[in-house]
Parts: sequence; C-alpha cells; structure tokens
Amino acid sequence: MKKISVIKIGGNIIDHPEKLQRFLQDFAKIEGAKVLIHGGGKIATEMSKTLGIVPQMVDGRRITNAETLKVVTMVYAGLINKNVVVQLQSFGCNAIGVCGADGNCIPSKKRSGTSIDYGFVGDPLEDGSNPTLSLLLENGLIPIVAPITHDTKGNLLNTNADTIASTVARQLAHSFETHLLYCFEKKGVLKNIEDENSVISQITPQDFATMKANKTIFEGMIPKLENAFASIDKGVKSVRILAAEDMLIGGGTLMVK
Amino acid sequence: MKKISVIKIGGNIIDHPEKLQRFLQDFAKIEGAKVLIHGGGKIATEMSKTLGIVPQMVDGRRITNAETLKVVTMVYAGLINKNVVVQLQSFGCNAIGVCGADGNCIPSKKRSGTSIDYGFVGDPLEDGSNPTLSLLLENGLIPIVAPITHDTKGNLLNTNADTIASTVARQLAHSFETHLLYCFEKKGVLKNIEDENSVISQITPQDFATMKANKTIFEGMIPKLENAFASIDKGVKSVRILAAEDMLIGGGTLMVK
Repeated sequence: MKKISVIKIGGNIIDHPEKLQRFLQDFAKIEGAKVLIHGGGKIATEMSKTLGIVPQMVDGRRITNAETLKVVTMVYAGLINKNVVVQLQSFGCNAIGVCGADGNCIPSKKRSGTSIDYGFVGDPLEDGSNPTLSLLLENGLIPIVAPITHDTKGNLLNTNADTIASTVARQLAHSFETHLLYCFEKKGVLKNIEDENSVISQITPQDFATMKANKTIFEGMIPKLENAFASIDKGVKSVRILAAEDMLIGGGTLMVK
Repeated sequence: MKKISVIKIGGNIIDHPEKLQRFLQDFAKIEGAKVLIHGGGKIATEMSKTLGIVPQMVDGRRITNAETLKVVTMVYAGLINKNVVVQLQSFGCNAIGVCGADGNCIPSKKRSGTSIDYGFVGDPLEDGSNPTLSLLLENGLIPIVAPITHDTKGNLLNTNADTIASTVARQLAHSFETHLLYCFEKKGVLKNIEDENSVISQITPQDFATMKANKTIFEGMIPKLENAFASIDKGVKSVRILAAEDMLIGGGTLMVK
C-alpha cells in the first residue's frame, strides 16, 4: 500500500507569515503523497471584529451564526487556503485548495440534539472513502483542505480542523498506509506541562486510559488524543503530535495501537 | 471530440440570490462536460467599503492594491465560489471550486509596461492545455472557476472574469469541442441599444469589423466581442452571448468564423 502523510497545522502557524512560509517550505519537501489541513487562526476573529460582528457565546462556546459563517468561509476557504496554495505552487508543490463541499469531499451533519445550538457547525458523517481526494492524489496533486464542510443540502458548515484532519486520514486509510501528523506549538504531549522537555515519546491506548484516570494529562490535550486513537481504530497507521518546526525531523509523541 | 460548455456568469446574477439559484438549477441540468466561471459582482466593493478600504482609482481605472487583493481573494475564491459549489452539490452536480492558482490552472503575468500601474492584476499567459481542469472533467467533476490567478512566484493576482472564461475555453479546446457562453443581463448583442428585441443573431469577423467602423456597436461590447473572436481564432468552436435566463434555450448572439 502506498504511504501518505496527512498533516494538520493550527492557527499558531497560520497567524505568523514567516512561520507559515518556513512550514510550507518544509511541507513542499515531504516525499510522496500528502494532504495539508489548515485551521483558521485569529484572522477570522479579527475580520469579524472589523466587520462589527459581535461574537455570540453560549456557555463559553462560540456560536457560528449566518454572519460568522460568511466570515469563516471567506477567511478559511478564501484568504488562508489560497495563500497556502499560491506559496506551495511557488515551492514547486502542485497544491490544489478544497473545502469539504468541493467534490463532496467531506459531507457532514449540522450539529443538533446538543444542549447548546451551535448554529452552522457540522460534524463529518461516518467515514467512507474519499474519491475526490484520492483522484487528486493519484494524479500528483496535493490537496489543501480548509475546515468548512457541507450538509449536501446547500449549506456550508463550520467544522473543527482537528476533526477534519482525522476524518480525511480515516477516509484515505481505505486506499493508503496513512500517517497523521498534528503540528502544534508544543514539542509533543508533555508529562509536565511546565517542562517543554518532558515530551512523552509514545502513548498506547492503555497508557492514555491510565493518564486520564490519574490526571497526568492536561485537559486541552484529551480531545486531541481521543481523536488520535479513534483514527487508529479506524485504520490510520500512526498518529504523531509534534512541533511544526520538527515536522521533517520527526519526534514528538507517537500514538500507536 | 467530446463537447464541453464553458459558461461565464457576471456580477448581475451573483448579486441576486434568487437569480443565482435559478441560474445554478439550470446549469446543473446542462448535459455533458461543463465549466462555470463566475465574476465578482458588488459584494467585494461593499466588503471593501465596510472594511474601510478606500478604492484607489487612477484615470478612472480601479487599482488592486494589497488590501483589495485580500478582499477579492476572500470574496471571489471564498464566499462566492463556495456558495456556488455548495448549491450545485445540492442540485446533484459534482462541483469543485478552484482559482487560477489551484493545480496551477491559470498561470498569469502581473500587468506591467502600461501607463497605469494596476497593482496586483494578472493577464493569463499564452495558452497551453489545462491538465488540472482536464483531469477533473474526465472524472465527472465540474470545475467552478473564481477570477483569481497567480504568477507562479507566490503572488495571487486579480483577473478579469471574461478573460478567464476565454482563457479556459482556449485551454480546453486542445481536448474538447468547446462552446463558450457569456451569460449577461441583455438578450444578446443589440443592433439598437434602446431596443431589447433588436438582438443580432449572428456575427462574423467581417460583420464585427464593419460594426466597429460605423459604430453600430456600443463601446462596452467591443472588448467582449474581441475576446470572443480571439477565442475562435484559437480553436474555440463557437461563442454565444445571451441572457442568463435563456442559457438552456439558446438564442442570443452567436459568433462564428
């Protein structure tokens, strides 16, 4: 089976043009099939503020109303996505930008049945394969995925970029040996949140259960790791969490069965 | 040779959600291979105003400065493009949105050597084929093209949508029998600008030369027709200018050799 790297970068890289450029130069150097999923960063929040859109919060959760959906569509699928594509093209990487509506890449369901109405937020449907991304990849094109999906009934939906990354990895695991990398601001999962050098090099599902029980893992990390192990259960070969600048070197924290 | 319809819709449709929806329902019904190129409409101008960007004009020509480029990238390649894609998907048409940077669809050259510095404006390079669009079309995907191109050196460039339409038609004429349709607000090229029913049904290059000489053709139409005949010279089978609501019926003005 052909190998593929599915790589997610977060807002902390997107928000810094020099960091982003360095990251994209590295990404262009990765050999073989690859996909990049990007988050949104602060640009959408700043744009909303400039446009006078008041962020709607319920119980500390951000709501995507119709106005906010417009902004994230513009910023994620337009500004950020095309700026990533145009840079990668200049580095010799034949990038093509998509959101989840393009070629029906990532059909999703508007979130409902929760105590909070999140507005235009979508959760990807259970995994099938991904004929559109597979077609692009088989022909040497490199998909760059913005975190917007659709309900197949004509509505765009805002979707968490970590979730998109694990969905795409699971879809591609039908046809590739898939390695999922979450690039973020820390060097990996830390044993001690105060100590940048306390990176845990490997976590098994058993380790994760223990760490949750004795609370040696900090809260923001839990959904990331749950996502990671869910991906491995669905056929993804490995998941790695590491600093963006270490992407080509490796290291960080490896999640395996 | 397989037939293809390359269709351009302008701002007058984009600006009206109901007209746009009706148009997209019609577009979804067109049989066989097809491509849609959309213009920008007034949304970008309004967005610029809201963001406090002062439109820069030199000699009556709009300049695309760095701030304006951001806005058109967001609005054309993000907001409009993805709204067209998501609607077409709901009408059973497997649309995929691209701009000229995606898959290096439309490489262009920053305009220079003119008396006015237009800023980030690109003119498409001389025509080759279009491997990315051809790949999508051969696999049943329907490309939706936003009027943004790139210089292959990392810069996005604002590009006239009529020009994009004729460029794409010329590129695809390498592998398809290509029919280019410009959908606009009038019923076709009018003999008498005051009379909506004075549509000229067919224009040859000889007719066009005569009409320019005796000024029976109104000024805004000249670049459209010049574009049309240039496309025909480069292998496009026919060019038709007609009202958007007549797209499925035909009619309007046909340009032939």
